[in-house]
Amino acid sequence: MIAEQYYEDFEVGQRFTAGSLTIDKDHAVAFANAYDPQYFHIDEQAAASGIWGTLVVSGWHTAATTMRLKLDTPLGKAAGGLVGLGIDSMKWPRPVYPGDALSIVITIIEKRQSKSRPSHGIVKYKVETLNQDGALVMEMVTAVWVPYKNA
Amino acid sequence: MIAEQYYEDFEVGQRFTAGSLTIDKDHAVAFANAYDPQYFHIDEQAAASGIWGTLVVSGWHTAATTMRLKLDTPLGKAAGGLVGLGIDSMKWPRPVYPGDALSIVITIIEKRQSKSRPSHGIVKYKVETLNQDGALVMEMVTAVWVPYKNA
Repeated sequence: MIAEQYYEDFEVGQRFTAGSLTIDKDHAVAFANAYDPQYFHIDEQAAASGIWGTLVVSGWHTAATTMRLKLDTPLGKAAGGLVGLGIDSMKWPRPVYPGDALSIVITIIEKRQSKSRPSHGIVKYKVETLNQDGALVMEMVTAVWVPYKNA
Repeated sequence: MIAEQYYEDFEVGQRFTAGSLTIDKDHAVAFANAYDPQYFHIDEQAAASGIWGTLVVSGWHTAATTMRLKLDTPLGKAAGGLVGLGIDSMKWPRPVYPGDALSIVITIIEKRQSKSRPSHGIVKYKVETLNQDGALVMEMVTAVWVPYKNA
């Protein structure tokens, strides 16, 4: 159990890891049926002759799974909750296949006091989502508000 | 039924709309339990004394629902599928509450031929996700590869 974290607890260059979580085929297809019902996500036969030659996991399922993994890191214990300020960039350099086991590496890349709300700081970080071979399947740069312990 | 769409079918300034889809409380809590189990997404009582004073929908559930709505627009009929090239920016300016009905407005903001793959073009677009009052709950800028019909 990681203790609640404050702005002072984070430093540029810190790295946190979490995982792995496996996305099995049934879950991949169910998620895609609900949110991203394209043939290469839901129809194994059609996917076989599609651009990847097999079923692939929706990028939004990978993103949601990455969120789940973030909560297992110290960043997920930020006081007040992991409330996103928005995404600076996000990309999916290679597909995730059903059965892949995902893990993440978070790197803190910037921190500064909020001008509009000086009791809080803004912690910017990169999240790399990796498959079981350590290959990058998603990369995101984002930031979170975190309160100071001693404001 | 929208016909399959090619690069030539898209023009800068075009706008497409789709919706609405309601995110009910049971689905909001189930999604958050799987992917974003923070108290303000899953625990109605705890959420009441949290930062929003009530349950709110995970931003990743809003993003996934936005994906589903995109497939109901001409962009969702791009030949070869709506394969994302990554996100340039994404933000959640206000919360989504369980029971909110979401719709989207897509605006094509740029198009150009791919240098690496001249049989395809890159169509950049903005997606605004709105609640039932027309208030902006998510905004994303992203792009998609689309093949030329007559390359």
